[in-house]
Amino acid sequence: MPAQYDVIVVGAGIMGVASAYYLKKNSPRKRILVVDRYSSPGQGNTGRSNATFRNTFSSPDNQILSNSTIDFFTHIQEELKVDIGLQKIGYLWLMDETQLSQSEPFLRGMEEKGVKTIRYGKQDLVNLLPTMVNDFGSNEEAELMELPPVDGGIFGPKCGRLDPDKLVRFYADEFVRAGGMFAFDTEARLLTVGPSKHHSARRGQSAWQDFQIEGVSLAGVADGVARAETVVLAGGAWENELAEPIGMLGHVKAKKRQIFSLQAKGEKLERLLHTRGFNSLGLLPLVVLPKAGVHFKPVSEEGVFWVACEDEINRPFINLPEHDLESYRPERDYFEKSVYPVLVSYFPDFRDCQVKAMWAGLYSYNAFDYLPFVFRESNLIVVGGDSGSGMMKGDSLGRIVDSVYRGEDEALLYGEIPYRTSKLGFERRDVEKEEWVI
Amino acid sequence: MPAQYDVIVVGAGIMGVASAYYLKKNSPRKRILVVDRYSSPGQGNTGRSNATFRNTFSSPDNQILSNSTIDFFTHIQEELKVDIGLQKIGYLWLMDETQLSQSEPFLRGMEEKGVKTIRYGKQDLVNLLPTMVNDFGSNEEAELMELPPVDGGIFGPKCGRLDPDKLVRFYADEFVRAGGMFAFDTEARLLTVGPSKHHSARRGQSAWQDFQIEGVSLAGVADGVARAETVVLAGGAWENELAEPIGMLGHVKAKKRQIFSLQAKGEKLERLLHTRGFNSLGLLPLVVLPKAGVHFKPVSEEGVFWVACEDEINRPFINLPEHDLESYRPERDYFEKSVYPVLVSYFPDFRDCQVKAMWAGLYSYNAFDYLPFVFRESNLIVVGGDSGSGMMKGDSLGRIVDSVYRGEDEALLYGEIPYRTSKLGFERRDVEKEEWVI
Repeated sequence: MPAQYDVIVVGAGIMGVASAYYLKKNSPRKRILVVDRYSSPGQGNTGRSNATFRNTFSSPDNQILSNSTIDFFTHIQEELKVDIGLQKIGYLWLMDETQLSQSEPFLRGMEEKGVKTIRYGKQDLVNLLPTMVNDFGSNEEAELMELPPVDGGIFGPKCGRLDPDKLVRFYADEFVRAGGMFAFDTEARLLTVGPSKHHSARRGQSAWQDFQIEGVSLAGVADGVARAETVVLAGGAWENELAEPIGMLGHVKAKKRQIFSLQAKGEKLERLLHTRGFNSLGLLPLVVLPKAGVHFKPVSEEGVFWVACEDEINRPFINLPEHDLESYRPERDYFEKSVYPVLVSYFPDFRDCQVKAMWAGLYSYNAFDYLPFVFRESNLIVVGGDSGSGMMKGDSLGRIVDSVYRGEDEALLYGEIPYRTSKLGFERRDVEKEEWVI
Repeated sequence: MPAQYDVIVVGAGIMGVASAYYLKKNSPRKRILVVDRYSSPGQGNTGRSNATFRNTFSSPDNQILSNSTIDFFTHIQEELKVDIGLQKIGYLWLMDETQLSQSEPFLRGMEEKGVKTIRYGKQDLVNLLPTMVNDFGSNEEAELMELPPVDGGIFGPKCGRLDPDKLVRFYADEFVRAGGMFAFDTEARLLTVGPSKHHSARRGQSAWQDFQIEGVSLAGVADGVARAETVVLAGGAWENELAEPIGMLGHVKAKKRQIFSLQAKGEKLERLLHTRGFNSLGLLPLVVLPKAGVHFKPVSEEGVFWVACEDEINRPFINLPEHDLESYRPERDYFEKSVYPVLVSYFPDFRDCQVKAMWAGLYSYNAFDYLPFVFRESNLIVVGGDSGSGMMKGDSLGRIVDSVYRGEDEALLYGEIPYRTSKLGFERRDVEKEEWVI
């Protein structure tokens, strides 16, 4: 392996491969290397994610980034005929009266921007989901858990799921075809820094110097320091571990999130999985329950549901690398105490269901406004903070990284949509905080 | 020591003691305990700080918070006759033409809000500071370091220094006099959390429960779990270490900063220290050089200058508790390579000066907008992110913490200035990013 590159991209998750793809596409003569600790792309937290997408955000910037990305993904599958497992099953938020009325201003905001949603009334849902419990009466268990009734639903039709493995392979294959390089089984240990003016280097490193990244110290199959003119940091939850030791800001916070795969065995669950009326696929949408962020979606080709839940207080933030292994350890106890009781209360079809598989990964986010960032500092470009919705904004963010690299003020997103790159930076950040968080 | 309090304040730095003082003052019957790992107040990063103050900020909120705090400090010393070592020596920013013109919009913004500054021309500074070098001609050393010439200066008259030890003692003594309690030599190890509805506790802890802080696990002189209705986290750089393990956001980033105390020995340095013309004290102001954030101030009662410098890239962020000891270790090498060459180039009076003492501490900040935060989540109130300017906003922030505790939408700052408490929270944060950072 040569030791000098124009660009080294750290991380072969969705952000890394999408960035690498657009960098190589628009600068075909540049030597671009992507490094990743795993042996193929998307095996880190991208591969552990729930891999769903939505365009239903309150923040106009999130709407733009996700809409364009979903359109590009649809283009890949329908026009380029590359199967990425994309299914527009929709998202269905079940809510009580209070939640419904709190949602109204956000739904109106989405409508104004052309983001379509459908409102379902209580009776609509009884018809569509006849086995769902929408009112608990004097059920002691439901009272203990303070489960809200289901008074209605909000449906996002341009939402769905895809196969993250197939998606990252699309970008990775195209990148390699264009002459891009990967170094797998290779960990980026640290960024090396030196004075940007070499004539001052003889004085050692001092605070009055300007610094730049010289390269990336690698360990694994590729070993040693690889020098680079520009480094793109696309390490997701690992971003801080590379940025902070050299005094550059790491802006991500990370929490463990778990997914439990439940067998759709027996008539009841099979019928639930193939619920009709929501989409042309004849499948249940992703369903968000009105309590504790419990949600589930059908994975029809495997005959399972994936169930997940977001716990905030009392779920520690993860410090890497200290908590690395812990962050991949799913907790059966968590399913049994936190997820199952809520799930089975609303959907008794799940009573005594079998957990076929479970896994955990890191949800990493920008805790300030829940929007992603792309910024350049010296010769380092950082992309991240995608806040559990990186998959659905990945194409747009890859294009923005490439525009930042080429010094353009504006990126052109799929669908010929111009986007000012400084909006996602920290110097002149110009985004509205996201309020529509699952 | 009793094991049950209305409020436990973690941290007896400036934020902790100012908060405790106003909490006790306005809720005299509440049992309030302040815990700190040191044996007296202000011995952590408050005591290691440069202990200066200014009202010259670009952000209107920083202007309000600091102006009111400085007025209160002046009131303590001049009207209450409690010596806190306050000296309004002023801040003098030395700048080249480019820096001066970049400053203009900020200075006009300050003027509009009544924050007074004085502009000095090149010749004014020659008269006031005759031994300063303002142009390096073809000096090779200065060229290597790319030292800008001094084309002018901006002076903030309502800026100065104080004695942090005396200041925190003022708040601490008043708090104790009102019946407040301290537990010194006591470390807050972790916050304990439980379901807020006790009838659901028999089910163990689950994601569908609401949680609250039950108390603080203490180690040291006071040992064991102290229960509290409300916990105020005022731990500065240590905030994340308590908040993040229970899944609450820690918003601070921390870097080591160093101060070098130089003897004002010999006629030249003594004359420099007693430079006249800037303030009524006949003292040099705090001087900020146009390069690398090097700045120095006179500490007249000790016959020394304190010199410091802010290094960004290549100065790692500190992870606590891992880097705890490292964060207190000053580096002589850093003085010699980074600080001294810049200092002596502009002020040759410092040639061969003696370092009498040096120390280091943690500068902790909110990397998003460089303004402090005060927020409440469940029964936890967090104050921090003061970004190296906690001393000069401490009184205002203590009053805001107390208002948040009492559920008031508005705090009344010193000088009868109303301030909407939600402005410094994260839910409805409403502040302009600070641009006037030393």
